[in-house]
Amino acid sequence: MRGLFFDGSQVTFRQDLPAPSPRPGEAIIRVRLAGLCQTDLEIAQGYMGFRGILGHEFVGTVTAAGSGADNRWIGKRVCGEINCVCGVCAMCRRGLQTHCLQRTVLGILNHDGAFAEFVRLPVKNLHAVPASVSDEQAVFVEPLAAAFQVLRQIEIPADARVMVLGDGRLGQLVARVLAHKLAEVTLVGRHPEKLELAANACGKKLCAVLAEEIKPGHDQDVVVECTGRVEGFEAALAHLRPRGTLVLKTTVAAGKPLNLAPIVIDEITVVGSRCGPFPDALQALADGEIDVLPLISRRATLESATDFFRPGAMNGLLKVIFEL
Amino acid sequence: MRGLFFDGSQVTFRQDLPAPSPRPGEAIIRVRLAGLCQTDLEIAQGYMGFRGILGHEFVGTVTAAGSGADNRWIGKRVCGEINCVCGVCAMCRRGLQTHCLQRTVLGILNHDGAFAEFVRLPVKNLHAVPASVSDEQAVFVEPLAAAFQVLRQIEIPADARVMVLGDGRLGQLVARVLAHKLAEVTLVGRHPEKLELAANACGKKLCAVLAEEIKPGHDQDVVVECTGRVEGFEAALAHLRPRGTLVLKTTVAAGKPLNLAPIVIDEITVVGSRCGPFPDALQALADGEIDVLPLISRRATLESATDFFRPGAMNGLLKVIFEL
Repeated sequence: MRGLFFDGSQVTFRQDLPAPSPRPGEAIIRVRLAGLCQTDLEIAQGYMGFRGILGHEFVGTVTAAGSGADNRWIGKRVCGEINCVCGVCAMCRRGLQTHCLQRTVLGILNHDGAFAEFVRLPVKNLHAVPASVSDEQAVFVEPLAAAFQVLRQIEIPADARVMVLGDGRLGQLVARVLAHKLAEVTLVGRHPEKLELAANACGKKLCAVLAEEIKPGHDQDVVVECTGRVEGFEAALAHLRPRGTLVLKTTVAAGKPLNLAPIVIDEITVVGSRCGPFPDALQALADGEIDVLPLISRRATLESATDFFRPGAMNGLLKVIFEL
Repeated sequence: MRGLFFDGSQVTFRQDLPAPSPRPGEAIIRVRLAGLCQTDLEIAQGYMGFRGILGHEFVGTVTAAGSGADNRWIGKRVCGEINCVCGVCAMCRRGLQTHCLQRTVLGILNHDGAFAEFVRLPVKNLHAVPASVSDEQAVFVEPLAAAFQVLRQIEIPADARVMVLGDGRLGQLVARVLAHKLAEVTLVGRHPEKLELAANACGKKLCAVLAEEIKPGHDQDVVVECTGRVEGFEAALAHLRPRGTLVLKTTVAAGKPLNLAPIVIDEITVVGSRCGPFPDALQALADGEIDVLPLISRRATLESATDFFRPGAMNGLLKVIFEL
């Protein structure tokens, strides 16, 4: 089958990849659309030491079910959770399935991903996509669920002062989710056109500000860090009030020494936040609460997908989706 | 009066310091004993840009009260909270007095400290020391309160797996407080004699382990970082289970790049923790719940106090107290 393969040094489009077969409890899904995520770009730089087919954001149609998997899934349009878990380890038994000690992760850890004609996942990972949600919307379910995770992890009063740092893909989704739930959200970014996009989507509930035009005032109750840069982490601490909460949505690379003293002095709480609840994201899309379609910058074929892994290719772009 | 003064470059014992006069609402306290803290040593290295009399851990006797201050404090044996707050700023109005925007901090920020014959503090900062608590115990109230703050900030089930990193002054106190409240606590340190001291104090509830003999297993529910080193922060993340809580008690200097990715991947919560509740500490001492006296390594006169600021002078020592 066709697929986008990372061999540890480069990303190549290949047509000779073996199609997956379902193991017990698993389904095979014919991928319809797949979304490119920052994590894919980082994996192609060596992050996680992954080798195999890239990609973890997708919508597709179930074509086969393995032994023990309910046949009624066949023909259904689905998206799928990315952590494949054992169900029996200490973490699974505690209800922390996304932290399963034996887990594989779609396109990220020991599990071929969704940038291919077919992908293999346990049926328990699947979520049926309602007819009212288009493929183009459904391909956002995984990152939108990650945005909803913020609301699952911390309680934010509706009138709280909340700021999102980063106007990229994830920052855009987090800003939309928070603006929908709260009275007001500030989005800080470096791209006027991306800030405008967010402002158009959220109306008066979103205050979009250029990073160079805002001075940190230690006055935010919650800051959600979506820049993935050490500078974003430091800015978040400067924006937070004492005893405020910093939600870390993106892995911050260790590019330079980082002063953690403000966390102690201001008694900040830092909450790491990763995958989130698919049902919340699907419901929000079905109800038309969150408009994700303007975030699609490019539609591309898988054949041309390698272009987007070139240095600088994603500059100025938000979501790129691959058609299969 | 006599006092230990830091002029921005060196610490000197001086006999020509002006004795403080009480401002409205303030008391003057004749210092009886004062304790040397890691923060004092760091301030003497330039931390906080402080200039003035050092020291913030003390027990003393009130000798005078300014206008508007209750005269009944005079003659009382007291210890004192170190944050002097305005009571009217946005933080004070929110109940976050220790984060007052206008605050001065005893011996740390724009307020002469307790390594002197007399010290000046608002009477609202004072706590009477019960007769059952000796001077030697009372001088531990400030750091012991900081240890109790951990229990105020996070809820820890009695059967949680809890680890304290660092067998120094603060780690010793935190381990004692947690061992008293919980079923079991692990203390990890680098000094056999300090670990033994903690084990003797806590009995079977404390498991004291040499750092070189423990392999991080991502199995702790809570880790309290008391080493103040980047390596301690990294070790804490390696010991924590997914969704565990890291309590940062000490300011971690930015000596080298720090990888924050594990916070996101394991969805760790990091809680910065600073000053704590004096009443909890006084009560624990009065009730004999926490034995602090074995932590006193040296008693010294203020005249000889500068010795302890020399490089390496504190190696192997726990608490040093100055007699006035």
